[in-house]
Amino acid sequence: MPTFRLTVEYDGTDFEGWQRQPEGHRSVQAELEGALTAIAGAPVTVKAAGRTDAGVHAEGQLVAAAFATDLTPETLGRALNAKLPADVAVSGAAIAPPGWNPRFAATGKLYRYQIWNGVSRSPLRARRWLQIPQHLDLAAMQVCSESLRGTHDFASFQAAGSSVSDTVRSLARLDVAGQAGNAVLIEAEGNGFLRHMVRNLVGTLLEVGLGRKSPVWTTEVLSARCRSAAGPTAPALGLTLVRVDA
Amino acid sequence: MPTFRLTVEYDGTDFEGWQRQPEGHRSVQAELEGALTAIAGAPVTVKAAGRTDAGVHAEGQLVAAAFATDLTPETLGRALNAKLPADVAVSGAAIAPPGWNPRFAATGKLYRYQIWNGVSRSPLRARRWLQIPQHLDLAAMQVCSESLRGTHDFASFQAAGSSVSDTVRSLARLDVAGQAGNAVLIEAEGNGFLRHMVRNLVGTLLEVGLGRKSPVWTTEVLSARCRSAAGPTAPALGLTLVRVDA
Repeated sequence: MPTFRLTVEYDGTDFEGWQRQPEGHRSVQAELEGALTAIAGAPVTVKAAGRTDAGVHAEGQLVAAAFATDLTPETLGRALNAKLPADVAVSGAAIAPPGWNPRFAATGKLYRYQIWNGVSRSPLRARRWLQIPQHLDLAAMQVCSESLRGTHDFASFQAAGSSVSDTVRSLARLDVAGQAGNAVLIEAEGNGFLRHMVRNLVGTLLEVGLGRKSPVWTTEVLSARCRSAAGPTAPALGLTLVRVDA
Repeated sequence: MPTFRLTVEYDGTDFEGWQRQPEGHRSVQAELEGALTAIAGAPVTVKAAGRTDAGVHAEGQLVAAAFATDLTPETLGRALNAKLPADVAVSGAAIAPPGWNPRFAATGKLYRYQIWNGVSRSPLRARRWLQIPQHLDLAAMQVCSESLRGTHDFASFQAAGSSVSDTVRSLARLDVAGQAGNAVLIEAEGNGFLRHMVRNLVGTLLEVGLGRKSPVWTTEVLSARCRSAAGPTAPALGLTLVRVDA
């Protein structure tokens, strides 16, 4: 029984997230499992590197699927893309070691958050960019991002109600970059992320960018180890899981 | 009665094009006229620089709207964006000379056509990129584009059934560029375009890129002055009206 390693891309707009939901609610997991089950002729369940929230996109989610088949990875990928809806596709398929689980195999993840810092709405960016009409102080956001980089206890950036005991994570990269035409990209790369961590990091950077807080506030937020100390959770639509290293 | 010059952005996916259609069919013109009529309290009609086809997007369509009002352009722009649906917005508003008509005032237009030259579907590009899984010979397409640049009779690239008498146009630019990650961008800039001209140019470039025709074929196509001599019309979804100069 081969274990397949699938690279999956999806537009999260019309999904209630990665994870399977009750009947009548769309999830990426249910779409993939449905297509795999139809191909295998028997129930197939999958495991992902990370459970993205409702509205979050993925360019390179990693997924494991194990089931009895003679299909090559290439043929399986083509068969899946013929069955999957327009907003999910498999961009890569390979054979993984037996029992491979991308959640535990992942050594790093890269997330990108897209902000459209324009005065008016941008319809062509409506599905993937958070619009912020006010001036953003990018230099202040960059100072703030520097103090968040590295290994810290990120308890203040964890979703309220989470019960993870070890909240220490390493952020190899947290970059804020202004691009042509009012675009601002925030990239976060690390060995692991707490629930809502990237969106809470972005929400905190935005408090500084909007001038509501000074960049030094970030140090206070980190040391508080309390969700209410940080900025609000940024909306899901700006976030993309770009890559999982495994 | 001021004449407003509006820069309009739209995601063409869910529209049957720019032009007003019979009841029950969505058009960008009808959305804009509806919003303007609500603001003016009396019927307002608009004129655009170009009537984009169903499924074609615009970053910078130019539109004229004249009606009696005391609103400043800035206030009008904000009021329109509050009323317009998520897939249309006004990104700029200014006062134009009385009687200004962007169709006749336009001295140039820039179109971009986006091709995703990847083996598998890309859900995040589904609304704005034409997927072509086969290998594209970009060098051959570039040779082809060079012979199409300049002033020519583009009758072979005009939609069948068009009745324009003068089919001579000048293409200042027709560039084919490979980008990172399987993206191919074709940009066409000129003083005017015949109906379906950009999509027919792209369809012809693709015949060459796919190896079905040699680059020298392009010269034959031009001199034939007959629609059936050129390649097929490329799908609308890859096309964006980037900018109108006026």
